[in-house]
Amino acid sequence: MAPLTSALTHSLQSLFGERYTTSLALREQHGRGEAHHAAALPDAVIFAQTTAEVSQIVRLCAAENVPVIAFGAGTSLEGHLSAVQGGVSIDLSRMSTVTRVSPQDLDCTVEAGVTREQLNTHLRDMGLFFPIDPGANATLGGMAATRASGTNAVRYGTMRENVLGLTVVLPSGQIIKTGGRARKSSAGYDLTRLFVGSEGTLGIITEVTLRLYGLPEIISAALCSFESVEQAVAAAIQVVQLGIPVARMELMDRGLIRAVNAYSGLELKIEDTLAFEFHGSPAGVQEQVEMVSAIVEENGGRNFAWANAPEERSRLWKARHNAFYAVVSQRPNARGWSSDVCVPVSRLGDCILETRALLKDCSVPAAILGHVGDGNYHVVFAVDPSNAAELAEVAAINKKMVRYAISVGGTSTGEHGVGTGKIAYLREEHGDAVDLMMAIKQAVDPAGIMNPGKILP
Amino acid sequence: MAPLTSALTHSLQSLFGERYTTSLALREQHGRGEAHHAAALPDAVIFAQTTAEVSQIVRLCAAENVPVIAFGAGTSLEGHLSAVQGGVSIDLSRMSTVTRVSPQDLDCTVEAGVTREQLNTHLRDMGLFFPIDPGANATLGGMAATRASGTNAVRYGTMRENVLGLTVVLPSGQIIKTGGRARKSSAGYDLTRLFVGSEGTLGIITEVTLRLYGLPEIISAALCSFESVEQAVAAAIQVVQLGIPVARMELMDRGLIRAVNAYSGLELKIEDTLAFEFHGSPAGVQEQVEMVSAIVEENGGRNFAWANAPEERSRLWKARHNAFYAVVSQRPNARGWSSDVCVPVSRLGDCILETRALLKDCSVPAAILGHVGDGNYHVVFAVDPSNAAELAEVAAINKKMVRYAISVGGTSTGEHGVGTGKIAYLREEHGDAVDLMMAIKQAVDPAGIMNPGKILP
Repeated sequence: MAPLTSALTHSLQSLFGERYTTSLALREQHGRGEAHHAAALPDAVIFAQTTAEVSQIVRLCAAENVPVIAFGAGTSLEGHLSAVQGGVSIDLSRMSTVTRVSPQDLDCTVEAGVTREQLNTHLRDMGLFFPIDPGANATLGGMAATRASGTNAVRYGTMRENVLGLTVVLPSGQIIKTGGRARKSSAGYDLTRLFVGSEGTLGIITEVTLRLYGLPEIISAALCSFESVEQAVAAAIQVVQLGIPVARMELMDRGLIRAVNAYSGLELKIEDTLAFEFHGSPAGVQEQVEMVSAIVEENGGRNFAWANAPEERSRLWKARHNAFYAVVSQRPNARGWSSDVCVPVSRLGDCILETRALLKDCSVPAAILGHVGDGNYHVVFAVDPSNAAELAEVAAINKKMVRYAISVGGTSTGEHGVGTGKIAYLREEHGDAVDLMMAIKQAVDPAGIMNPGKILP
Repeated sequence: MAPLTSALTHSLQSLFGERYTTSLALREQHGRGEAHHAAALPDAVIFAQTTAEVSQIVRLCAAENVPVIAFGAGTSLEGHLSAVQGGVSIDLSRMSTVTRVSPQDLDCTVEAGVTREQLNTHLRDMGLFFPIDPGANATLGGMAATRASGTNAVRYGTMRENVLGLTVVLPSGQIIKTGGRARKSSAGYDLTRLFVGSEGTLGIITEVTLRLYGLPEIISAALCSFESVEQAVAAAIQVVQLGIPVARMELMDRGLIRAVNAYSGLELKIEDTLAFEFHGSPAGVQEQVEMVSAIVEENGGRNFAWANAPEERSRLWKARHNAFYAVVSQRPNARGWSSDVCVPVSRLGDCILETRALLKDCSVPAAILGHVGDGNYHVVFAVDPSNAAELAEVAAINKKMVRYAISVGGTSTGEHGVGTGKIAYLREEHGDAVDLMMAIKQAVDPAGIMNPGKILP
């Protein structure tokens, strides 16, 4: 990869004026996400405002073999934003217009920089919502790029299922539209799903068309505590296997509850906990609650605590969404390291057991949490990024946890993406299919300027 | 593309013995699907029994630049099976083992030649089912390859949402596995979704891992009639917009009902009809029925006729699944031409109105039917394949219908695929994104031996 030449700098500067910057503070902010990964600074940051501008930047950079890295809210957890080979960070956060909402079709189109909270605020008065909710208030472009999910995926799916179409700037600067507004299509290769989860390595997503949902008639949330994580997981597995359509089913171990209480000013019982949310009609929710209550009780759960008032519910889920920050805040100057695996639900119990054993003698604060309805769970570690021994200790635990997940038919990352952090496991998980991924990368981005050093070994 | 050399013939013959054939009858059977498209015969047919054998065939053919075309049940509707450049048809129907079912994880793995009916028979005693149901008893490999759906997609999604992973033989003969058994993953490019819908042009699917569902506690089906298709569609749109989780919602116009009665020995009222199926708990089904009944009544629907006994329901849906054959059988020696578009549901009313206008003076028998909950509908024409004027007349209607669908944000094919029949519309629908599809095809299959002449212009 080439450095920014003065000619390119000049062109970009004259096109973008003050929206082109090389300020150290901004480069530092754009060279990393929220996790432990070391920053790698881009040479410049440009605040783009339109798809045409993104195309212009990419075209100019492509001509000089300069890397481009898309930046949304900066909340990535696996090093996606590190400019490991320098280049230009294209900040899309000012592309924040909700372009179209069609309540009749339950879909909308947004610019890539719209955040999930912004979209839901926009939708609320129309009786609609968009369910995908990674912890952070990420942008929808970023969420598409990492194939994000969150607490509602057990009921509503992930970005994979909820993106209908995209506008993408290709490495040549060419602008294409993928997908469309039909709910289903058999018309050609599924380019939408190729870009969803491609982490900016094949093109830059500038616009996203999304499925929306009507706000449920009734929403009801509940917490219940267990004497052990194993009991909680056993209950969760039964709920999945019976096909009860819970909207959320979250595991929080007692370490996490402690952290969340401190960070969010709550007074939840410090026990291993499942948090549920039920969506539906009054009778439907009632049925789900009865079935889940029976399962919880059967597995030794107790203290079903309800949070039905909207403000109570939002306090609960906001606290859950802030779990990462809560764990990290336990320790001054720490950064979070969030591991993320997903396994077939029948193996969730032994995977979590194995993970708990790995954490037994861990020297840094750590908590287990997860979207257990999908077989997806995380361990968040609060690490001192300057302490090499500590980083090595956590890396070793992470490696064992990921390998165990892969060995039972699971994946090295359920929702955070590969970035730089999971590259080492890609071949272990996908074998020779990785060669095909590389062939596609080579075909789409032969010069390798799109977010280099991510996903592929 | 090269013809079969005698050396290649010799190698294949000595490897496959009687499972290698050049019999005219078998070549004729393998050179076409069920629709109007003219047959184009492969030079030979091989009945493969394992993934390794498929790999062997592909490797040998690749070395000589000979095309390979995968064949399942032969039920394709858009000319996918035509050996337009000759080559070898690889028949996968003998790869019909259900390899694994995991009730605890609600998933299974099947060989590509397992049919949807075979799978559901296999699952029935476990209380599970696989919902995707194109009319024909297609193979699951073929359904994955065309991104098929059917009557249940409004509730359960299509093959896009229900394939977890694949085994694929690449054009080099290399065998890869895509995806896995985790419900979600962010680990690299979504190769599974790239192959789903690629119609054998990127590789041959030999094994499919699928999501399964528990059989619903209660299933209830009903037909109701309307004075006009417009009224029926208006009711269907309201059901979608209210988010009522119907499992099936099928439009059958009066022409179709007449054909179905004659073909399947039923005595349904000859009126424009919506057929519903409701899945859920007793209370849930009751709620759905009440809401749908109110909507139907509001839109002038009447004669809610229930089919709740299992044998009644299966007779109804079997008749619906045979709709294509029913229309075709109205005319001796006819073949079916099934057009297939999908539009945003808010535009479904005017699209169907427009289609009815196109059909007003059509000289061949035709009927409208559709998975209206998804905005997906078909017109089935019974054409005389030797009558050029008739084929031209239907082609003109088809073209107008497809273009209208694309103009309102819809797709040229909701579930039948592109094959040879929809190639002409690909660029109209996807614009420059088609260039990217071609670049991917070029990267994966540089010699162009995989089902040449399909999907891409």
